[in-house]
Amino acid sequence: MQENVKFAIDVVYEAGKRICHMMQEDIKVEEKTSKSDLVTNVDKQTEAFIVAKIQERYEGQNFLTEESTVDMHGSDHLWIIDPIDGTTNFIYQKQHFSISVAHYHQGEPIFGIVYNVMADEMFVGITGVGSFLNGERLPQLNQDQLLSDSVIFGDVYRPDFFKLSPAELKKEFITHRFYGSGAIEIAEVGAGRAQAYVFPKIKTWDIAAALIILKEAGGTWYFGNEIDHLTIDKNPKVIIAASNQYVRDRLVSFL
Amino acid sequence: MQENVKFAIDVVYEAGKRICHMMQEDIKVEEKTSKSDLVTNVDKQTEAFIVAKIQERYEGQNFLTEESTVDMHGSDHLWIIDPIDGTTNFIYQKQHFSISVAHYHQGEPIFGIVYNVMADEMFVGITGVGSFLNGERLPQLNQDQLLSDSVIFGDVYRPDFFKLSPAELKKEFITHRFYGSGAIEIAEVGAGRAQAYVFPKIKTWDIAAALIILKEAGGTWYFGNEIDHLTIDKNPKVIIAASNQYVRDRLVSFL
Repeated sequence: MQENVKFAIDVVYEAGKRICHMMQEDIKVEEKTSKSDLVTNVDKQTEAFIVAKIQERYEGQNFLTEESTVDMHGSDHLWIIDPIDGTTNFIYQKQHFSISVAHYHQGEPIFGIVYNVMADEMFVGITGVGSFLNGERLPQLNQDQLLSDSVIFGDVYRPDFFKLSPAELKKEFITHRFYGSGAIEIAEVGAGRAQAYVFPKIKTWDIAAALIILKEAGGTWYFGNEIDHLTIDKNPKVIIAASNQYVRDRLVSFL
Repeated sequence: MQENVKFAIDVVYEAGKRICHMMQEDIKVEEKTSKSDLVTNVDKQTEAFIVAKIQERYEGQNFLTEESTVDMHGSDHLWIIDPIDGTTNFIYQKQHFSISVAHYHQGEPIFGIVYNVMADEMFVGITGVGSFLNGERLPQLNQDQLLSDSVIFGDVYRPDFFKLSPAELKKEFITHRFYGSGAIEIAEVGAGRAQAYVFPKIKTWDIAAALIILKEAGGTWYFGNEIDHLTIDKNPKVIIAASNQYVRDRLVSFL
């Protein structure tokens, strides 16, 4: 494995251990935009830790992170970091949250890491190489599977999302599940545990790493008007990440 | 710990190991009532294994199980078994499924076990003793927490469930999550990871073990017209399992 990927995996593992340790103490919670948009001292400290570790090794590179460490040096190298995706899960459940780290060079994805801390599942996607779960290569996703034989992740019945009614939607796929960490859900689509993830509000740092994992496993996606473009400078309003084009296009037709 | 609880935990662990082993081979899937109501050879073999182990040790006791091992000897002792709760998860995700075993004597709950196999989380509730997760006692649930400060498990926006619209419901609690194994979700309410589980279609074997775990952690519930009664001979149409009466009663008021 490339040296930079190895390095980033080690940093993420260490950040995960620190989170587990901090979880034993009192977590300080602040509201950001609403009672379901929260941030904690653990999010902030984890982000600062990861950024510092990367800066220590690589001087003068760019950062785009959830908790506002925006640090642009005009470098060709960009790190996109979400210290805790699924902060509500972290606070209430103490599980089902993840650390995301993505590395881009001149706008092109190099690798992405999503670490489901409590499940100890390390998903890694490396452009041109493939995707891995705890070091084991993920098989390529079934490109012929239809939506009717699929499980969907996400809050699919939100009335502001699909134009189909819940009753109509229900007939289109086997069932749905909703964990509340987009990064985990997209990485798990990459691992074949569901065939799509749909969500109406998403930020770049939620998806930048996970989409690399999905792509290298053979998956595809849609957001806004774009198909199959890994964006790092937009916050798409809706995202549909899918195991193949049939699943994606059928879901897109319901928007 | 009582000898019978220890025995049952050992049987469940062994059943879990067998499932992990069988997962490596081809799983044979059959539809029961619909494409989301499935059963596999692994469900059936796991049930047969657990029943045989119990029969080997305790002669002439009664059984009520998901996969139809109904064996009534007029005994005062009843075992309620769900070999795999979350069969769809088992087939599609290879995670988020559980084994449930409950033991009742003269209609009264003695103990309940819910084992989340892939997470290796063994939840045990023993009447009059308390509830445990992997051997550690679960703390008593907060009896003052309100619905407005709660996370809810379940497919909450199903139109056949609450009379509130999704937009109205959204304002009532922090957020919802949906894993698709009622036994795990109720046991996790007992562990304080969410404050309620709501579901409109439930069978006795889905809840018989999990409710004992919830009860011994201080939780409560509602189904049909009954509150706080552990039933073993009914299939309630709706269930609301909650960490306390405030959360339960507020949710009941939306039915």
